[in-house]
Amino acid sequence: MQNFGMVIKQATNQMNKHMDTYAKQFGLTGSQMSIIDFVGNHGQVLQRDIEAEFAIQRSTATLTLQRMEKSGLIQRTAAATDARQKAVSLTPKATKLKQKITAYIQGQQQAMEKTFTPAEQAVFNRMITYFIQLNGGAHD
Amino acid sequence: MQNFGMVIKQATNQMNKHMDTYAKQFGLTGSQMSIIDFVGNHGQVLQRDIEAEFAIQRSTATLTLQRMEKSGLIQRTAAATDARQKAVSLTPKATKLKQKITAYIQGQQQAMEKTFTPAEQAVFNRMITYFIQLNGGAHD
Repeated sequence: MQNFGMVIKQATNQMNKHMDTYAKQFGLTGSQMSIIDFVGNHGQVLQRDIEAEFAIQRSTATLTLQRMEKSGLIQRTAAATDARQKAVSLTPKATKLKQKITAYIQGQQQAMEKTFTPAEQAVFNRMITYFIQLNGGAHD
Repeated sequence: MQNFGMVIKQATNQMNKHMDTYAKQFGLTGSQMSIIDFVGNHGQVLQRDIEAEFAIQRSTATLTLQRMEKSGLIQRTAAATDARQKAVSLTPKATKLKQKITAYIQGQQQAMEKTFTPAEQAVFNRMITYFIQLNGGAHD
């Protein structure tokens, strides 16, 4: 087997490059695109949900969200459930972009689901879940 | 199937976090650790080999390698085959660290190979290769 960690990293880098290229036409970065998709799918999320979903540090999340707020993509308000947390939601501008973003992400997902059987997909999920656990992560 | 791109990104982030923690005891970052492993396995490589292996931009590679040269981990010399390229090799300091790095990387690889059958590993490789191609990458 070729090196497992290496090929996962290559896949992520390649995916990021491809997403950045797509995002550029909307004046976004790939990361901003992913966050718009995630927030849009949930309506409203806490910053800590974003940190957990993307496995990023709090400082990185804060910086990214501040930039997105400045660009008029998200709004941050004090969370009703936890005053120390900010609730993040999409602006109308980002809501409009979300359609194009979802089409992109679903296109890739559907290509995978069409090409591989449910049994193969299950193997993939078991292996990547084990790898995440091996690296100290919990994964559901 | 859960979102394929998302879980790959989570795996990479988790792997990076885990590697950074391990690397810290040697005064390294996770990326430096990966590069020491790659260069050490090949004896001498060109900068463009590093860019291709890690799917990173030239500017990122240049910055990382400059830092590693300053820290006395690598040396860069004009390549015999192509004067526009720099040949990268490990210093004795990095060569000594390589043992610990290889043990870490091989430990993860062996855990995967012990836990999953060759058939399962083949499914994983086919799926991640297809995903890399879907994102505009060539992969062998």
